[in-house]
Order: sequence, then structure tokens, then C-alpha cells
Amino acid sequence: MALSTRHLLGIKDLNRSDIELIFETADNFKTVLNRPIKKVPSLRDVTIANVFFENSTRTRLSFELAEKRLSADVINFAASSSSVSKGETLIDTVNNILAMKVDMVVMRHPYAGAGIFLSKHVKAQIVNAGDGAHEHPTQALLDAFSIRERFGGDIAGKKVVIVGDILHSRVALSNILCLKQLGAEVMVCGPTTLIPKYIGSLGVKVEHNLRKALNWCDVANMLRIQLERQDIKYFPSLREYTMLYGLNKQILDSLDKEITVMHPGPINRGVEITSDVADSKQSIILEQVENGVAIRMAVLYLLAGQQS
Amino acid sequence: MALSTRHLLGIKDLNRSDIELIFETADNFKTVLNRPIKKVPSLRDVTIANVFFENSTRTRLSFELAEKRLSADVINFAASSSSVSKGETLIDTVNNILAMKVDMVVMRHPYAGAGIFLSKHVKAQIVNAGDGAHEHPTQALLDAFSIRERFGGDIAGKKVVIVGDILHSRVALSNILCLKQLGAEVMVCGPTTLIPKYIGSLGVKVEHNLRKALNWCDVANMLRIQLERQDIKYFPSLREYTMLYGLNKQILDSLDKEITVMHPGPINRGVEITSDVADSKQSIILEQVENGVAIRMAVLYLLAGQQS
Amino acid sequence: MALSTRHLLGIKDLNRSDIELIFETADNFKTVLNRPIKKVPSLRDVTIANVFFENSTRTRLSFELAEKRLSADVINFAASSSSVSKGETLIDTVNNILAMKVDMVVMRHPYAGAGIFLSKHVKAQIVNAGDGAHEHPTQALLDAFSIRERFGGDIAGKKVVIVGDILHSRVALSNILCLKQLGAEVMVCGPTTLIPKYIGSLGVKVEHNLRKALNWCDVANMLRIQLERQDIKYFPSLREYTMLYGLNKQILDSLDKEITVMHPGPINRGVEITSDVADSKQSIILEQVENGVAIRMAVLYLLAGQQS
Repeated sequence: MALSTRHLLGIKDLNRSDIELIFETADNFKTVLNRPIKKVPSLRDVTIANVFFENSTRTRLSFELAEKRLSADVINFAASSSSVSKGETLIDTVNNILAMKVDMVVMRHPYAGAGIFLSKHVKAQIVNAGDGAHEHPTQALLDAFSIRERFGGDIAGKKVVIVGDILHSRVALSNILCLKQLGAEVMVCGPTTLIPKYIGSLGVKVEHNLRKALNWCDVANMLRIQLERQDIKYFPSLREYTMLYGLNKQILDSLDKEITVMHPGPINRGVEITSDVADSKQSIILEQVENGVAIRMAVLYLLAGQQS
Repeated sequence: MALSTRHLLGIKDLNRSDIELIFETADNFKTVLNRPIKKVPSLRDVTIANVFFENSTRTRLSFELAEKRLSADVINFAASSSSVSKGETLIDTVNNILAMKVDMVVMRHPYAGAGIFLSKHVKAQIVNAGDGAHEHPTQALLDAFSIRERFGGDIAGKKVVIVGDILHSRVALSNILCLKQLGAEVMVCGPTTLIPKYIGSLGVKVEHNLRKALNWCDVANMLRIQLERQDIKYFPSLREYTMLYGLNKQILDSLDKEITVMHPGPINRGVEITSDVADSKQSIILEQVENGVAIRMAVLYLLAGQQS
Repeated sequence: MALSTRHLLGIKDLNRSDIELIFETADNFKTVLNRPIKKVPSLRDVTIANVFFENSTRTRLSFELAEKRLSADVINFAASSSSVSKGETLIDTVNNILAMKVDMVVMRHPYAGAGIFLSKHVKAQIVNAGDGAHEHPTQALLDAFSIRERFGGDIAGKKVVIVGDILHSRVALSNILCLKQLGAEVMVCGPTTLIPKYIGSLGVKVEHNLRKALNWCDVANMLRIQLERQDIKYFPSLREYTMLYGLNKQILDSLDKEITVMHPGPINRGVEITSDVADSKQSIILEQVENGVAIRMAVLYLLAGQQS
């Protein structure tokens, strides 16, 4: 069994059996991660460069652990301390890394499409670890994998609402594509100002009322408000946002059924989600983090198998 | 033999046999470090995260080398490039790292008590690598271990003076507790402005005259003046401080006996200590650095043995 | 066979047979790097610290990969986050690292002669990874190695022109010394403002006309304009520089013979070299990067053999 793609640039590249193959492989690696000996020799003699043109400790750490569990040789390249500030092009930077006999590049980049562009101009296999507000495929895979785990194996027919700032999120689009590929129904919920115009073309429902959305869904994925991004002008204000779209225990308990709560992290407690919800049994937030390592091991392992 | 504690948050947690067990274990590791093959497989399959919310190259490097000599898997997490700036709580940050199957957390944090707080809310074992001006237990252990080595095995009855900025030091309190636990007599020496009011309650002598302190002691531990900390207003001025509390060869040679000189580093040559003193045979400053790796190996090794 | 030096501080330290021994050793390691299993156990149980007092992702990455391919234990020390800002001297910083049982130090430093100074005061072996605008010996070795490879084994009698900012380059001097040691003829070419006065004493030709220089040479090594360095006042202006000293396809095709084009990277495409030249078959820029890892493996391996 092999993936139908050489790179993982976005969920767009994956068909349903690709995703299922990744999940089955991740099942195996999750078993490994729960053994006392968490390492496997699968990628011994494979060198992976984590090339991050934007800070993302959480994602970088998860990839780095996945790589080390697979026994790969790991090189970290942070752009802030790099030749990029010396006027070098992206292609030259990556070609230089590849000339040092690196086999795979995991790349986070602030611009949408950076990975796609790169994959057309260099020989290495590229894993997109987030490209601007475009795709973040491993996050979508670990989210869907966590839902599948919660519901004992099948996502088809499940109703998932993604709540919050859909417009600036790199998680939303990948999640929508992944969930729909697996047969789930998807809704987005948020203020009109934070929902992109193209959303209708993706075949998802749109809802502006949080309570209605929650009453409809089986799973609510609460996106984070990116307080640290000075370039985003939030409207409504943070206080209004929390009043209208923040998830608290009171709303959760008032629903007819027990829904599952997700969050890609890092959480702003008291903004998009209250502490009692984040720490409740309905929340699978830490399972998502744990599954992230298993999913990334699966992706790297399967892509390495593509090398001729 | 096992430690009586699951964490190393401060010397407060250790009884006398804990400290002696750490020293005996460090003796063994020091032998290892002086062999051509400096690595042991003791912590193979143990993953340790060095979580530093404050810069400390020296301490981080010493822990990292200790971990690598023990064959542990090592992950470095520097807070400046972290989700912390994204509004995440300390507990969430650490829980996320733990969800990735990390076994132990070595943490440096700018606030006193951060490690203690954390240990009550997360499952992992915590090693305090310095929490504000509170405790720095591995530094105190390596200091006491170096004194014990210098005096051929016993610290009981030895007279140790800690000279300088006791108030802002993370080293002073841990050193006092450790030395007293081992039966040494302890004095602090410095200007009244740099000695905390609670010092009397710790059972240590206080002396404001350097020469008197040196004439009393067997060992002088010269703390560094933290020139780089803009938040400390030093009084007396640096020039006055050096005149009153700086250790130079002339004073050292004028004493009745040959005392041992220590410094936790990094040294400000010409401020708290002159070059001829730092590089003299009475100085064990580099021995302290060398012993630091052995002590940290011992602490990590013994704590790992606590895991059920 | 052994090197005649314990350190690699500059090409000045190497005689011709040293350079040839490094090249032959690098030939072997290059074969290793092109195997599926790129690792050798040669430096198992050797600990190497990469101590960078100045950013240089490219050089650091190349050294780090060389060290990992040799199975050394690697510690990275970046000065921006270091005790250096705490007023510690260079000698103390390095002695502290050495006290932690580090065997070799690879150092990049902004000041000329830092490595030489250090080698006189500490016990460890030092590899200079660039000291200000002085020497960058491994770059010169990889450049000469790449020329040797291009011409099937012999550099003697070859004509090499180094074009550009000779004055501020750390590459130029090392290249001149290395190439002359191997019997090549060397010319420098650039505006008078960017050629140092002492250049005549090195036995190299000086030419201010690019076309004449190119017509003379077999190999042109195009140095980069360091746009990011605010302390350099460039005269002529960038636009004039490119008009007078930029290498483009038109000039290259108008020459009588096919010359080889080199560049130490990172490239400013359209400034000192156009894209069609950089990506042409006459360019060996990526071969230089690839050879860099092999050369650094050879240097580290041979120096480690010097340890008593």
C-alpha cells in the first residue's frame, strides 16, 4: 500500500484511501508510543529538515518528536536566524539544504502556497506544516483521526461544526476538505466578518448562531482567536466575541445531547472556551496533541516509502 | 535505594540521605565522564523536555549534556519562541508537551514557585532548573558536591561563607539549605541592602565585613553581580561593591589559612573576583562546572527510577 | 598520516600535504554521503560544541550534519542567548563548555583572530568557522576541493579569479592562501574601493575590468554583496556594481572558452550573478554546498585523530 502523492502539501492531494492508509498506519504508531520503548528504526538513515519560516513551537515539537521516534536524523532550520534575511530566494535556501543530502523537508511558511511552489522547483519531498491561512494538512488529519477514535472508527455521517475565525485560520480549510472526503457533514459558525466569501463553494453549512450550531452537531471544533496577530483587526471586539461565540459549561449542559469538544491549541481560556469546558470529559484536546505525533509519524513513514 | 521525592523542586524536598544518595550516584557518573566512552544507556527510551522560560545557556547546556550522556531523547523548548506569547497558560503548555509522551520536564522559570505550582497540576516529574530568586537545587547540589570532593568526603563542620547579592540570588537559598542539611556552618556576607530580612530564620550567620568573613571560613562562594538585570538597582555602586566585597589576591594571601574559592558563574572578572583569584589553585570554579554534569545525571537517573 | 596542526584556525596553518590529506579523506566521505547509509561511527564518543557568536545558519547546518554523519555528540551554543551578554570573557565561556567534557569547538566569531587567541588559552581543539573578515578555512577547502573535482584532480596551474567585495570577505583571504598553496594562479577583480591595500603582498594579480578577468581565468568565484550588513557603505552603488561586476549569461557566452562559475552563497540573484548563470551547467554552486559536508567531515575526523 502506498500514498498516491509524493508530497503532503494539502488535504487536496489526498484521496479517501490515502487518508485511511494514514489512519491505519497512525493506529500502529500510536500503539508504539504507548509502549515503554517508543522508538522504531523505520527512518534510520533518513535525514529530515524542519524548515520553519514562522514560529510554531507546538507543531515543530510534534514533528521533531515524530521524527526522533522514527529514528530519523533531524536538522532544525529557523528562518529568523537564516540566510533568508540575507536576500536568498526560498528555492535557493531549500536547494542548499538538499545539497547537504537531506531527504525530506517539513516546512512552515507565512505565505499560502509556499509548499506547492517549492514542490515544483526542488527534488525533495515536502510536508506542509502550515502555509499562511491556507492549509495545515497534518492538523486536519490528526483532528479527523481524533474524531474517528472518539466515535469508534467511523466519521461518515458525523456532524462537525468549526467555530470561530474561519477567515484567518490555516486549520479550517484543511479540516473541511478532510472531513468531507471522509463523508462527514461540516458546518462553519462565526460572525460574518470572520467567514470567507468562498465558503459556500466548499459544500459546508454556515450558521451565525452558536447555540443553533451546537444543537446540530456531534463535534464542535473551537478555533483560537489569534490575539497575538497585530495584522488582524477583530470585529466584533474580544468581549463581544466571547459573549456570542465563547463555549462555556452552561451552554454545553443546556444542549439536548453530549457533544465532543475540540481545539487545535494553544487555548485562550476564557475567550473561545472556558476552563471547565476545556478540562471536561467532553473535551479531547489533549488526545489531539497525542494523536498529532502518531499522525506525523505515519505521514513521514509513508512518504519515505515513496522514495525510489 | 531511592529518593524520597518524585520531583526535584528545591533542596527543601531532600533529606540528608537523599543528598548522600545523589552524591554517591554522581561519584559513579563522574567516573564515567572521565572515561573515553562517556555515554551510558541508563535513560534509553526516556524523553526529557528542557523547558526554559528564561535564557540560561550554561544550565541548559549542562542538563542537555547530562541527558545525552544518559542516552535520553532530548527536546528543547525555549519560551521566547513559544506559544506562551500566544496567551497559553503554563499548565496548558506543559500538558501539551506531556501529551506528546514526554517523561520528565526540566524547567527554568522567572517566577519563584513555578515548579511547585506546576507539580501540583501535571503528571510529569519536574526538575527545577531555577525559579526566579527562589531555588536552584542542582546548583546547590553541585556546589556541595564540589566542597565534599575538595575536603575528601565530609562537609559536616565545614565553614562556608556566601558573599554578595544574597537578595536576588537563586543560588543562595538552595546553598544554605543544602549545606545546613549536611551539617556545615553557613554565613552570608554582603551589604545590608543585598541581604534579605528573613535570613536570620535560616540559622545562618550574617557578616558585613568581607575580611572578617574570610578569616572565619573554610570556603568562600562568591556570587555574581547580575549586571545584565535592569530591574535590580544596585546600592552600593559597582565600584564601591568591588572595593568592599570584591575578592582579590592581596586579601586572599593576607588570611591566616588557605581557603577554597567558588563561584557559580558566569564570572565578572574584576568585579566580585579578580582574575588571579579565579585562576588560582584555591579556586574550584571549573570543577564546579564539571561536577554539574555528573550531579544532573545523578538527579535525572534517580528520578527516572521513581517512575512506577 | 596526520595533519601537521592540532587546530584549524586558518589556511595559514596548513601545508600542501595537509590539504591533500584533507582532500583524500573528503573523497572517501563523499562516497559515504552518496550511499543509502550516510553515517559512519568514526567520531562516536566525541563531543563537539558548535559555538556561534554570529548567525550563520548555512555554515552551522553544514558542520552539524558533518558531525552527525560522523556519529559525534553535538551541542549547539548560540551567543545571542548566552552568558556572553552577562559579561563573561570568551576564554571563560569556552573553558566552561570544555569543563563539561567537550572535545572540540567549532567557532564562528565576528572578530578577526578570535580563534587564534582562544587556541592559546584553552586546551580544546578549535575549528575556525569564520572569524570576522579574516579567515574561513573550511570554505576555502571546499572551494578548492570543488575546483579539483571539476578539473579531474589537479589545481596546479589553474587560473582562478575572485570577483567582488574582497575587502569585507572572510572567504577571499582563505581562498587565496589555499589556491596558491596548491599551485593555482589567483587574481582578484573588483572596484578599488573593495580591494584591500595589502592584496599585492599575497602574490595575486589585481584587475578592475570584469571582462578582462573572465577572459584570463578558468574559474570565476563570485563573492556575494553583503546587503544585510549596515556597517558596510558600498561604493559604487548596488546598481553600478551589478552593471560593472555582475556576471550574466551574455558576458559568459561572449568569452572564448567555457569557464567554471562558483559562489559561496547565499546568492543575491540579479546582483552579483544572474539566475541563468547560477543555474547553468557552468555553475558548480550546489556541488560546493554538497562538498562542504564532506570537507568538514574530513577536517573533524583528522583533527580528532590528533588527540593524544
